Amino acid sequence: MTPAYQKLETHFKRLAHIGHALTFLSWDQLVMMPSGGNDSRTEAVAELSGLYHDMLVAPEIGDLLEDAAGEELDSDLRVSLVEMEREYRLASCVPADLVKAKSRAGSKCEHGWRVQRAENDWSGFQANFKEVVNLSRQEAQARQAAASDSFPTPYDALLDLYCTGDSAEMIENIFSTLKESLPGLLNRVVEHQENRDVQISGTFPVEQQKLLNRELMIILGFDFSEGRVDESSHPFSTGVRGDHRITTRFRTEDFIDALKATAHETGHASYESGLPHRWEDLPVGQARNLSLHESQSLLFEKQLFLAPSFISFFTPRIHAHLTEATSFDTEQIWQACTMVKPSYIRVEADEVSYPLHVILRFELEKALINGDLETADIPEAWDHKMTHYLGLSTEGNYRDGCLQDIHWTDGSFGYFPAYTLGAINGVQIFNAFCREYPDWEERFSRGEIIFMRDWLQEHIWCKGRTLSSQHLLEEATGEGTNPEHFLTYIRKRYLDDRI
Amino acid sequence: MTPAYQKLETHFKRLAHIGHALTFLSWDQLVMMPSGGNDSRTEAVAELSGLYHDMLVAPEIGDLLEDAAGEELDSDLRVSLVEMEREYRLASCVPADLVKAKSRAGSKCEHGWRVQRAENDWSGFQANFKEVVNLSRQEAQARQAAASDSFPTPYDALLDLYCTGDSAEMIENIFSTLKESLPGLLNRVVEHQENRDVQISGTFPVEQQKLLNRELMIILGFDFSEGRVDESSHPFSTGVRGDHRITTRFRTEDFIDALKATAHETGHASYESGLPHRWEDLPVGQARNLSLHESQSLLFEKQLFLAPSFISFFTPRIHAHLTEATSFDTEQIWQACTMVKPSYIRVEADEVSYPLHVILRFELEKALINGDLETADIPEAWDHKMTHYLGLSTEGNYRDGCLQDIHWTDGSFGYFPAYTLGAINGVQIFNAFCREYPDWEERFSRGEIIFMRDWLQEHIWCKGRTLSSQHLLEEATGEGTNPEHFLTYIRKRYLDDRI
Repeated sequence: MTPAYQKLETHFKRLAHIGHALTFLSWDQLVMMPSGGNDSRTEAVAELSGLYHDMLVAPEIGDLLEDAAGEELDSDLRVSLVEMEREYRLASCVPADLVKAKSRAGSKCEHGWRVQRAENDWSGFQANFKEVVNLSRQEAQARQAAASDSFPTPYDALLDLYCTGDSAEMIENIFSTLKESLPGLLNRVVEHQENRDVQISGTFPVEQQKLLNRELMIILGFDFSEGRVDESSHPFSTGVRGDHRITTRFRTEDFIDALKATAHETGHASYESGLPHRWEDLPVGQARNLSLHESQSLLFEKQLFLAPSFISFFTPRIHAHLTEATSFDTEQIWQACTMVKPSYIRVEADEVSYPLHVILRFELEKALINGDLETADIPEAWDHKMTHYLGLSTEGNYRDGCLQDIHWTDGSFGYFPAYTLGAINGVQIFNAFCREYPDWEERFSRGEIIFMRDWLQEHIWCKGRTLSSQHLLEEATGEGTNPEHFLTYIRKRYLDDRI
Repeated sequence: MTPAYQKLETHFKRLAHIGHALTFLSWDQLVMMPSGGNDSRTEAVAELSGLYHDMLVAPEIGDLLEDAAGEELDSDLRVSLVEMEREYRLASCVPADLVKAKSRAGSKCEHGWRVQRAENDWSGFQANFKEVVNLSRQEAQARQAAASDSFPTPYDALLDLYCTGDSAEMIENIFSTLKESLPGLLNRVVEHQENRDVQISGTFPVEQQKLLNRELMIILGFDFSEGRVDESSHPFSTGVRGDHRITTRFRTEDFIDALKATAHETGHASYESGLPHRWEDLPVGQARNLSLHESQSLLFEKQLFLAPSFISFFTPRIHAHLTEATSFDTEQIWQACTMVKPSYIRVEADEVSYPLHVILRFELEKALINGDLETADIPEAWDHKMTHYLGLSTEGNYRDGCLQDIHWTDGSFGYFPAYTLGAINGVQIFNAFCREYPDWEERFSRGEIIFMRDWLQEHIWCKGRTLSSQHLLEEATGEGTNPEHFLTYIRKRYLDDRI
């Protein structure tokens, strides 16, 4: 390794240690911390975020990046350097004070949201949220300005943080294809399922569900010596190599939601656990982007867990843990898991209507950040679009409307599109895997999963950021993100009742 | 506030934010983290500890401290400045590399200990522990050298970190008084209790015990909106204002140990929750020292929880949660709680033999740090002293011998004496409180506790570090640490069966 590049590696590893602290302080805040700890935690996180930022944009890093660019580097180190440069550029175009202020406002807003959502308190939320939007707009403008003409709108500059490499234009094209087909498809599926009588009901004790969900995680390949599962109101996944933390949530009257969430978050954790060891703690060793991250979680949830072959394997486990579930057989459970019904809550939405939830958020947040919508107008706009896309009004029902998601509370605008890009990429990647293993259904029906993990490890996980998202997809599947695979899959699963 | 002092406050508050991160990363490591997370956590904690250290000993802090010393300051700011100077002095006399190396070695040793203790693996432990001792000796010598002639031995320099203001000479005098009386007293008490037949046995489900212990905490004044309780193999207390975290541990065959540990840790958390708000995040606003910290935890455990009046109030709660406990009445529970029997494990020891456990550790760690004992010789020395003081051999039984405590694993030498100083101070402080409230027993028997918290708040907790430990005791009780109060109390409780 050359001297400047070597120094950069050392520096970025130090940064990763500060990032480690931020990761687990945030996990703790969402999963463990009592409410009284919020003020102190907010200050500490803001301090560390500021410190992280200062270390990342230190002038000597700029100098080292320039020096390293002139050094003779192997092609893999060159790729690593490019990702370091990107981190530096992304961080240095936003003033440290703004980063700190946004972190503080976001933490306050998110904390308040936990109570406000339960109390349907939009105006209490809005009081905090206005400042988050205000600071996010400033951030977006700063990012846009720093990137010269490469982002047509401020929102595009935020989108790039999450859907890196997936251009806004590309996303708009994809969403437009979906908007053309999905509403019609949705109606046909609802009609097709009209005579399904698969209401899962009963009492499913949380303690028993916990055991069942742990068993699912183990079958899916989660290693409990390198991670844990807890509960939170909004399931999520975080952690570092060797310590992957996911959360799920339980309802006593239903066991399916928790299993889906658990499979989903296990997919996220699996991607993280498979990232290239060689590049640990360096930018190039991280997950490519959120669209790909979501492709892995959705692949675990939709393609793997909900495969009829896997459900047939897993049903006896469900019966073993949940006495009242024994009255439902494999077919009934699969049918209940794949019921399509337009509903208010995105995280509980079926996969046919889900993209419409995302398109709604994409359109609103784009308008919000570009200054075409004010926070006060969100509830009305939300209600309008929900009524239009899914036929459901959220008037006065903020809890199940615009207060339902955690993402905006801390200013993570540009994140939502990743869910639907992920759904599409997940199908596309799974199809490529199936082409290589035509006997996949037989193996799933025996609970064999590791061979799929191995394939994903080789084609997706171990790549880190060494390839762009579309290049990675091309290598793994033969083409870039193509929504037709998703639409074909939806028709097969939901109109033909196959796969 | 004057300019230099003002800058120091800002700086020390930033330090407190880094300290916040270290506090909760350490809590997580002991309570939540899977074993696979250790390497990454060790690196992150070492990084932050180094950063904390660098920020604390930065040359501009030395300059600011000098400038502030020359400023016109109110007497309370002067006291605050003295405590800042002390922190700076303590941190700057140890090289940053040594701090980092010790943190890393300590984290590794502590992590290994969690498995090694269970496996009775002394040689595995020793391989890590040697380095901890080596680095602790270096630290002690550096501290001694920096303090000129004020510490007669290297060990004294470490002792000062925990028993601040309680001189080694004072401790030796106190321990010598105890060593004179306790072995004889211990024999008389064991003889006196010979005919007690109070074996508590049964099956007490952990989930029910959890509810019972939470109820105890609430009665003792713990606020669950500002804290939480979890489990760990060695109960401890940590946290920050508004977020106090304690741990306890459960055994299904006994419910008393957990209650004692819970009361004990609640005492620690209570002291922390009562520290002066005005001085939050500044050195002068912290707990005076560990001897006083332990006085509060032991006061909650021994003087409050084990008061016959409180036990009589609390017994119906025990019966309500634990079906199999209903066969034990108040008198039997009190007798079981106050059984004296020399045993291997310090944290489970009765309060008559407990000081002998501490004196053993004090003597060994003093010899270890001063170079009069090598790690390889610890098991033999431990066995020798245990046999001598308590009549119990630990030969080959490392698990219940020298591997039982967490303290040495990360190099916290000088900590142990605080337990017994705390026991003495706890009795002395409680006696002063009782003189002011002669009806305390009647009130305890009704479950009234808050008036005692108020008294402690006023006389101990709110003082922070504004007074030296002995001065604080003199103001609160009329005299400095006096072991005679402890011996009188032991005779009353254990020979006369009173209080």
